[in-house]
Amino acid sequence: KPTFDPKEHQHLRYNPLRDSWVLVSAHRMKRPWKGQVEKPPEDNTPRHDPNNPLCPGSVRAHGEVNPEYDSTFMFDNDFPALQPDAPDPGSDHHPLFQSKAARGVCKVMCFHPWSDITLPLMQPAEIRKVIDKWAEVIVELGAEYTWVQIFENKGAMMGCSNPHPHCQVWASNFLPNEAALAERCQRDFLQKHGEPLLVQYARMEAQAQERVVVENEHWLVVVPYWATWPFQTLLLPRRHVPRLPDLTAQERDSLASIMKRLLAKNDNLFEDSFPYSMGWHGAPTGSHLQEDMSHWQLHAHYYPPLLRSATIRKFMVGYEMLANEQRDLTPEQVLEQMRIINETHLNQMT
Amino acid sequence: KPTFDPKEHQHLRYNPLRDSWVLVSAHRMKRPWKGQVEKPPEDNTPRHDPNNPLCPGSVRAHGEVNPEYDSTFMFDNDFPALQPDAPDPGSDHHPLFQSKAARGVCKVMCFHPWSDITLPLMQPAEIRKVIDKWAEVIVELGAEYTWVQIFENKGAMMGCSNPHPHCQVWASNFLPNEAALAERCQRDFLQKHGEPLLVQYARMEAQAQERVVVENEHWLVVVPYWATWPFQTLLLPRRHVPRLPDLTAQERDSLASIMKRLLAKNDNLFEDSFPYSMGWHGAPTGSHLQEDMSHWQLHAHYYPPLLRSATIRKFMVGYEMLANEQRDLTPEQVLEQMRIINETHLNQMT
Ligand SMILES: O=P(O)(O)O[C@H]1O[C@H](CO)[C@@H](O)[C@H](O)[C@H]1O
Ligand SMILES: O=P(O)(O)O[C@H]1O[C@H](CO)[C@@H](O)[C@H](O)[C@H]1O
Repeated sequence: KPTFDPKEHQHLRYNPLRDSWVLVSAHRMKRPWKGQVEKPPEDNTPRHDPNNPLCPGSVRAHGEVNPEYDSTFMFDNDFPALQPDAPDPGSDHHPLFQSKAARGVCKVMCFHPWSDITLPLMQPAEIRKVIDKWAEVIVELGAEYTWVQIFENKGAMMGCSNPHPHCQVWASNFLPNEAALAERCQRDFLQKHGEPLLVQYARMEAQAQERVVVENEHWLVVVPYWATWPFQTLLLPRRHVPRLPDLTAQERDSLASIMKRLLAKNDNLFEDSFPYSMGWHGAPTGSHLQEDMSHWQLHAHYYPPLLRSATIRKFMVGYEMLANEQRDLTPEQVLEQMRIINETHLNQMT
Repeated sequence: KPTFDPKEHQHLRYNPLRDSWVLVSAHRMKRPWKGQVEKPPEDNTPRHDPNNPLCPGSVRAHGEVNPEYDSTFMFDNDFPALQPDAPDPGSDHHPLFQSKAARGVCKVMCFHPWSDITLPLMQPAEIRKVIDKWAEVIVELGAEYTWVQIFENKGAMMGCSNPHPHCQVWASNFLPNEAALAERCQRDFLQKHGEPLLVQYARMEAQAQERVVVENEHWLVVVPYWATWPFQTLLLPRRHVPRLPDLTAQERDSLASIMKRLLAKNDNLFEDSFPYSMGWHGAPTGSHLQEDMSHWQLHAHYYPPLLRSATIRKFMVGYEMLANEQRDLTPEQVLEQMRIINETHLNQMT
């Protein structure tokens, strides 16, 4: 019998943050691709478009006028999925027809006044302003809400309907499914192993150097051992930090720098603007601000849809939706590709 | 304070088959869509293409020649994600770096010798042959494997790389995540409530008639109360049937008929071939064939990606990936649309 080789032999890997398994079938990359090819991202976004509701000075859906902002700009989503005053559906439901109240707010945050720029092309000082704004909104909405989800959908492939660089913030009076899972897994791990899950994980990955994409004094980006999406990455502080607002000034500058390096590498990989959904997971807020949340470690997930090129995506369909997530190359193979990629953005090389 | 209206007020609904919640924000359909528009499905598939590896008589990737089949045809996937003989990665792993062996087989099953036909355009007797073949492969692979996942990816939007009507069968020596979840939820429900979850659910939906898309003597198709995808449906037998091979001849004919009606309605909805991933969930097999599995009820999930039209999809990104699944219209609103749709396929109307 041959000895086990992760590049040749499918196996399952455990995701300790979601208490689930991913099927790794690396040999599947050998299969030819004859399926759908995506449109490459468009390159002709104007720097300023008065009809784009995210631009400085634009009129938005319900008539509000944006200020002539020159750095970040945050406003209430004009079509919010969560509103602060939705009435309660009532209790006393049959076990098969249960519903409950959902309250919250949705905000949009522009990163920059220009529509034709993305995070990896911004100055570190400009990215730092984005980070400060993120910390601010967690403090502001976290005072009332249990969970404040900051997320960025980048690229048309990721359902982003506006090329202007921006993210969204959805705060809710409930713990969303993914947050509840991360909460349970991290709590159980600390109890069982005496150290926060992601603090231990960051230390071990920094030592092993098998899955580290970029790192600096305060931060580490890895393709996690249990990554589901081919180029999925996990951004982790080295120090134990439960929430974004807890970051020091130095750690924020250092975060701006590592984000820029990671995202430049991503764009350089397929020589095109790299689509993804990303988001921050920090300790729950609201009433949890008063509780011991030492099992939580702040982290950001990057979920990019691509598999083979800027126009060939990984489809999470069929088997993945109905049975089990499956990936076509190992995280360690991804690292072999990522390691040699330049950290200077292709649009800024001279 | 206004009284609760599910069409106007976001709320959470509980999915008892996955023990999770979906955020229903129906008022969000009011937002205009300026994002990605998909290519409509191509209409020019030739009936027979000697270069298509799924056609009768074609030569496949590793040189095998397909027979001149005239109904269904099943063969081993030429690029299988699961192979029967993968070595074990070994045990004794750190809790953060756990892996385990995955063994199995992957098969492809053609529904029909023609490439330019789909299930809703096939004769009921032809669909019946597909159902019989499904039952056969569950018996065959289920003798050895714990889980036999039958699934169909339809349409380029769902990662389907070949227009020839076909499905896949992936059998594994482990319970995939989704199967494990369905197993736990159904087991707990029977224990707590004394009746199988989906048997009770089918009865209640048949009575309420609020979410029933099509039904006949033996089967029921509903947009489940907890549906995540806008046009998601759940196909359920009325009788308690743990696995596909347990279906009687009458129930199989009746299944062929209801599948044809459902899929014709789906195609008619946006007047174009309707993409989806679908799959069967029946009681686990292998060693479980000897156990009491009376908590299980056979069912099929249909997960279509569309939201507004044949070219505008629902993106499950950002908030959905990082926090919580979210839908933009209620299942009951979908029913208002589905109810008036013709059951005769648009290509067969005269
Ligand atoms: O095997 P196919 O049809 O080429 O591939 C398709 O279905 C598989 C199983 O759902 C997925 O893993 C692939 O991402 C998808 O493209
Ligand atoms: O609000 P947007 O950017 O228009 O919408 C996008 O992000 C939302 C949150 O992830 C998703 O629910 C939508 O499906 C997606 O198109």
